[in-house]
Amino acid sequence: MTEFDFLAGVRARARRRASGLVHGIGDDGAVVRSRSGRDTVITADLLVEDIDFRRATMPPRLLGHKALAVSLSDIAAMGARPRWALLSIGVPASVWKTNFLDQFYEGFFALADAHGVVLAGGDVSRTPERIVVDSIVLGETMRGREVLRSGARAGDLIFVTGALGGAAAGLELLESGANVNVGGARATKKVSAQTPRGRRSDARRQLLLRQLRPAPRVGWGRFLGEKRLATAMIDVSDGLSSGLAHLCRESGTGARLEASRIPVDASIARARLDAADPLALALDGGEDFELLFTISPRRV
Amino acid sequence: MTEFDFLAGVRARARRRASGLVHGIGDDGAVVRSRSGRDTVITADLLVEDIDFRRATMPPRLLGHKALAVSLSDIAAMGARPRWALLSIGVPASVWKTNFLDQFYEGFFALADAHGVVLAGGDVSRTPERIVVDSIVLGETMRGREVLRSGARAGDLIFVTGALGGAAAGLELLESGANVNVGGARATKKVSAQTPRGRRSDARRQLLLRQLRPAPRVGWGRFLGEKRLATAMIDVSDGLSSGLAHLCRESGTGARLEASRIPVDASIARARLDAADPLALALDGGEDFELLFTISPRRV
Repeated sequence: MTEFDFLAGVRARARRRASGLVHGIGDDGAVVRSRSGRDTVITADLLVEDIDFRRATMPPRLLGHKALAVSLSDIAAMGARPRWALLSIGVPASVWKTNFLDQFYEGFFALADAHGVVLAGGDVSRTPERIVVDSIVLGETMRGREVLRSGARAGDLIFVTGALGGAAAGLELLESGANVNVGGARATKKVSAQTPRGRRSDARRQLLLRQLRPAPRVGWGRFLGEKRLATAMIDVSDGLSSGLAHLCRESGTGARLEASRIPVDASIARARLDAADPLALALDGGEDFELLFTISPRRV
Repeated sequence: MTEFDFLAGVRARARRRASGLVHGIGDDGAVVRSRSGRDTVITADLLVEDIDFRRATMPPRLLGHKALAVSLSDIAAMGARPRWALLSIGVPASVWKTNFLDQFYEGFFALADAHGVVLAGGDVSRTPERIVVDSIVLGETMRGREVLRSGARAGDLIFVTGALGGAAAGLELLESGANVNVGGARATKKVSAQTPRGRRSDARRQLLLRQLRPAPRVGWGRFLGEKRLATAMIDVSDGLSSGLAHLCRESGTGARLEASRIPVDASIARARLDAADPLALALDGGEDFELLFTISPRRV
C-alpha cells in the first residue's frame, strides 16, 4: 500500500463522518464553517529529522522559517489568509541544552510577523534522538471563497507563481556537501558576483536558499482567492508534474504543458551543476513552494 | 532552563503578536474568534515513542484512542465542545508495512465517533525509527464561555471529576512487565472477579486501562462551560498537585486540599501493588485526564 492509497482510505472514512466540514482531507487544508461570514482553513505539516531535513545542513533559524513556510504555502494554495499558527515540537535533551530552540523560534517568528500570523498554541516534548516539528496554521477566507484542487475546467489556462526546480537543485548541492552562510551573505554576494566564478557561486547560494528558506506565496494565494480568479490551485511542494497530476485528478481534466513555457529556475544553469537537467528538476523536483493554479481564459 | 521557563518565554513573545486571539499559549487550548457567535478552541498534543508510550506495551488501537483522548481532554478543560480533529503521524517503514495504522485509526475513529468529532486533515510522514503522533482538535464554545485556568477566586470550592492515581499506578504495572488483553477482557473479568485473586487481577486490569485507555471528560467539560458553572478548569494530565498549582498560579490564589477528601482510585489498594502509596499517586501521578475545576460556593 502506498501513502496515497492509505490517505485515500483515511479520506473516505473521514468523509463518512463529515458534518459542518466544508472540505477535509484531500486538499491543501481543511475548511470548517464558523457561524459567521468566514471559513476557517487549517493545515498541518510534519517535518522529521533525517527524513525532511538534516541537522548538519539546516541551520535552526531556517528550520523555524521553513516549518512555518510549508504551512503558509498550503494556506495560500487554498486562497486563504493565514491568521494563527500552532507548533508542536519535539527535541532530544542534547538539543534542549543548546540555543537551537531560540534560533528556531527566531526564524519562525520572523516569518510569522511578516505575514501577521499569531502563534496560538502547540506542544513541546522531548524525543529520544531526533527533532520533529508539526506546524499547524489556520487561515480565513470569505465563506465559500476557498480555492480547491477540484475546480479546474477544460480550457482553463495553467499558471505558476515563480521559477521551478531551484529547491531540488539546492538539495543536490546540500547532499554533495555545500552549505550556506546566511549571516554574511549579502556582502560576499556584492563583491563576488562580478566574476564568472562569483556568478556561479552566487547562483549556487540562491539554489541553497530556495531549498532552505522557501518563500511561501501568501499574497498571491490570498489575492487569487479573494478575487475569485483561480478555478483550482495547489502548491507545488512535490514538484510540478505531481502537483498538476493531483489537480487534474481532482478536477477530472487533463493538461498539456509546453516544455518551452515552463519557468525553469535560471540559477540552475548558472550554477553549472554536474548532471543536473534543469527541466527535469522543474518537473519532478519539489519544495519550490510555488502556487500552481488554473484560470478561465476570459479572466486571464 | 526548564520547559516551563521556555514556554513562558514563547508565550510572552506570542502575546506581543496577538490580534484576534482571545487566548493563546498558557491554557489547555487556544481560543480564536470567528466573526460569529462562536469561539474556536484549538489544542495540539505530541506523543513520542519511548517518551510518552512504548510500542511493546501500547496496542496500536489504544494509541489511536489515547492520541485523541488527550486532546479531547484539553478541549473539555476549556469548557468547549470538540468538533474537528487533525492528526499528524510519522511512522518508520517497518511499521508502515504492518496493520499498525489500520488499528491506530480504528481506535481513533471509535473515540471520535463517540463524541461526534470529525477528522478534518493532518499529515503523514515517514520517520527513521520511532513513531510520533501530533493530535490536533478544534472545539467550539459560545463566545466568551471558554473556561480558563485563571478564573478561580478566593473562596471557590475545588472539584475533580473522578478518581485519581489510577493511571500512574497502571504505568507502574506496565513498567514492571504487565500487559492488557483488551479483546478477551470482559469474559475473563466476569469469572475471575469472584475470588480474592480475581478481584486483585481485575483491579490491576482497571489500572492498566486507566493508563492505556483514558476516558476524556467531554460531557462534563462542555456542561461546566455552557452552564457557566466552573470559574476555572484544567485537566489533571500532569497530576493533581501540578494541575492545581498551575490553576492557582494563573488565578492568583492559593488552595487548601484535605487529604481525606481527595478521591483516590480504589483500584490501587485492591491491586495490592508493591510500594505504591495511593495518595502520592493521586497527588503527583499523572495521565488520569480528569477535570479539576473551581466553583463559586453559591453555585455548588
